[in-house]
Amino acid sequence: MGEWRQGPPEQTATALRALHRPGNPLVLANAWDAASARAVREAGFGAVATTSAGVALSLGYADGEATPVGEMLDAVARIVRAVDVPVTADIERGYGLPPAQLVERLAATGAVGCNLEDSDPRTKALVDVDRHADFLAAVRAAAGADLVVNARVDAFIRDVDDPLGTAVERGRRFLAAGADCAYPIGASASEDIAALVAVGPVNVLFTHDTPALPELAALGVARISFGEGIHAALAAAHARMLAAIAAGASPYPA
Amino acid sequence: MGEWRQGPPEQTATALRALHRPGNPLVLANAWDAASARAVREAGFGAVATTSAGVALSLGYADGEATPVGEMLDAVARIVRAVDVPVTADIERGYGLPPAQLVERLAATGAVGCNLEDSDPRTKALVDVDRHADFLAAVRAAAGADLVVNARVDAFIRDVDDPLGTAVERGRRFLAAGADCAYPIGASASEDIAALVAVGPVNVLFTHDTPALPELAALGVARISFGEGIHAALAAAHARMLAAIAAGASPYPA
Repeated sequence: MGEWRQGPPEQTATALRALHRPGNPLVLANAWDAASARAVREAGFGAVATTSAGVALSLGYADGEATPVGEMLDAVARIVRAVDVPVTADIERGYGLPPAQLVERLAATGAVGCNLEDSDPRTKALVDVDRHADFLAAVRAAAGADLVVNARVDAFIRDVDDPLGTAVERGRRFLAAGADCAYPIGASASEDIAALVAVGPVNVLFTHDTPALPELAALGVARISFGEGIHAALAAAHARMLAAIAAGASPYPA
Repeated sequence: MGEWRQGPPEQTATALRALHRPGNPLVLANAWDAASARAVREAGFGAVATTSAGVALSLGYADGEATPVGEMLDAVARIVRAVDVPVTADIERGYGLPPAQLVERLAATGAVGCNLEDSDPRTKALVDVDRHADFLAAVRAAAGADLVVNARVDAFIRDVDDPLGTAVERGRRFLAAGADCAYPIGASASEDIAALVAVGPVNVLFTHDTPALPELAALGVARISFGEGIHAALAAAHARMLAAIAAGASPYPA
């Protein structure tokens, strides 16, 4: 391999897709603005994912598709411009855009991947599995190979009788429909993750409840992300600094 | 006073101006986006100031007027919409806009105050004092009473033979030209601050080098701000979290 292969991965779907390696996972320390994305890059990560909740809050909106799609995509474009590695965007349920238009507008931001959710942020209900598989297939048809699709499966975070069984079934369906990776958000038990990984490439959301990062890799996970967690932890640190100031103290470490 | 006076101050210049009380200062824990502004409000502060460096970085630009003015003002408008208290915007040197246009575009964001600097971010040289006093007078003429002008005096952060003498002279000139408050950024010694406060309403940037908040109040300071400090401290915390992840550890406290 020549020296030219040592540079950062290009901002292409091919480069992003190649980073999904079961057992040696892509780690995505989700960013919410250009500064946080640059920090992720400076820490040595080879790709950047956005957190829709973090982006929404930074723009003054609640999570759950409350952000006007144009503002969300402008924020994604700023993040793409801020780094030299592939960017994948959390675009919730696609903001009601038809698949072809969604793919076109996302491509215009420079992002080469996206998350798409299978539950309704308003009703909190899972979308019909056939309907969502059709939606993902339409996105794939519109994008060809030029988009890495991470299909979020919300069985563990919604009111579902058999979350693991539902997540396995949906993961299988969504991968068959053309998704590159299934993302059963909220899966945390090792045995659940092992069962999911058997279906295909899986994204695990790292939390206090999941196995540690090396254990997730050993389980065969292809992708690990942090969602809103990092942004929320910094917001908590910010609140502590503000409370110190309000009490007449310095917000800075001594 | 009736109960109706207990609510948050309105988003007016009059309300913001009234918070500048020598000895009982306005404390501004500078924000860079809607989420950070909401956090400031939720911590009980009665006004929000922006940090131009924080806003610029969050949009993907360097500080020093590298941000397109429209993007900077859009960010200010998002912050204004996110809170119910007066917002004052750090607009560097005004991005080369003529005073009337600057005042008009700033008013359109809903901000009711601004910082304006007396040195050139590119050359790092202080602007001629007469020229800057004329600029501030033109801003005042355009805005009438509807804008709280915080005149930054850069004598302590630029290459100046007599920083205190220069800051006292400039503070006096800028207040006479119509500024509401003088902001000798970098002033930190108690005796310097005491000399500056004798000139009129003064904004001190709180740092590791300044007296503590209660001491600044006792010195007669009318306004205390944190500039880019809070954003920078959180960026440092973010870098530590990212280093933990890169090392295979959890970024979250145990």
